[in-house]
Amino acid sequence: MKVGEFLNASRQRLITCIPDHALNDVARLLYTHGIGALPVCELNHRMVGIVSERDLVRAFARTDLGELQYLRARDLMTTRVIVCTPDDTMQHAQEVMRDNKFRHLPVARNGQVIGMLSLRDTLASRLAETEEEKNILRDVVLATRGR
Amino acid sequence: MKVGEFLNASRQRLITCIPDHALNDVARLLYTHGIGALPVCELNHRMVGIVSERDLVRAFARTDLGELQYLRARDLMTTRVIVCTPDDTMQHAQEVMRDNKFRHLPVARNGQVIGMLSLRDTLASRLAETEEEKNILRDVVLATRGR
Repeated sequence: MKVGEFLNASRQRLITCIPDHALNDVARLLYTHGIGALPVCELNHRMVGIVSERDLVRAFARTDLGELQYLRARDLMTTRVIVCTPDDTMQHAQEVMRDNKFRHLPVARNGQVIGMLSLRDTLASRLAETEEEKNILRDVVLATRGR
Repeated sequence: MKVGEFLNASRQRLITCIPDHALNDVARLLYTHGIGALPVCELNHRMVGIVSERDLVRAFARTDLGELQYLRARDLMTTRVIVCTPDDTMQHAQEVMRDNKFRHLPVARNGQVIGMLSLRDTLASRLAETEEEKNILRDVVLATRGR
C-alpha cells in the first residue's frame, strides 16, 4: 500500500503546532487529538521539526518543574526531520523509521507536510496486507490439493 | 507466537514504579529505559495500575504547571488493568489491546506482573510471523506450478 492511499483511507486530519507553542499547548494538542507526534511548522508552513510525546516526557525527566513554563516547542523538537512522500510504500516508510529509530514520520509533497505516519500505522497496515496475501496463497494451495 | 516466548526472545527487563513516585521520577524511568508504560506496583509487588507516556502528556495538558510537583504515579495511573498471561498468543494480546483501546498490556503469572507488551510489539511480531507463513505458502504454490 502507498502512503498516500493510507492517509486517504484513514481520513487523518493533520495537526501541527508552531515553534512558539508552550509545552502545555503542545501537550493539549497531542492529548486532545490522541496522537503521538506533531510537525512543528513556521507560519509560512515550512516544517522545522517534530515534537512527540517522548520529547515531552524527556523534558519532564530532565527539567526542573519550575523551568517547564519557559520551554517552547522549538526547545523540545527534533530538528533532524526525514520525510516520506505519498508515493512511497508503507514498507519503505517503516524501513525509514526502523533505520533511524523514529516512531513517527511526516509525509510531505512539494516541500509541504500533508500527514503523519506512526510506526504502528505502518505495522498494522502491512500486517493486514500480508494476511490477505497469505489467505489468497492458502486458498490456491487448498484448491490445488483438492484437485 | 506465545507472549512468554516473545518476552524471552526480547530479553525485556521489567521496570516498575510505586504509587508514590513523583511525576518526574516516572518520566525519568520511562525516558531512561525508552519505554511507553510502566506497571505501578505496591511494595508487596501487587500491581495497582499502569502509567504511560500518554498519562504524563494528559497531566501536562490539564494541570497547572505549579501543581505538577504534587502529582504522584497514583494520581495519573490507569487503574482498570487488564492483563494477559505468558501462555496467551500475541494475536490474543493484540485483540485485547484493540478491544480496550490500550497501547500497553501487562503480562502476569500467578498474580505477579512479569512483563509488559506494547501494541507495536504484537504488530511487529505478528507481521514477521505472517510474512514467514506467506513465504512458505508461496514456495508451495511455486513448487506445485513447477511440476
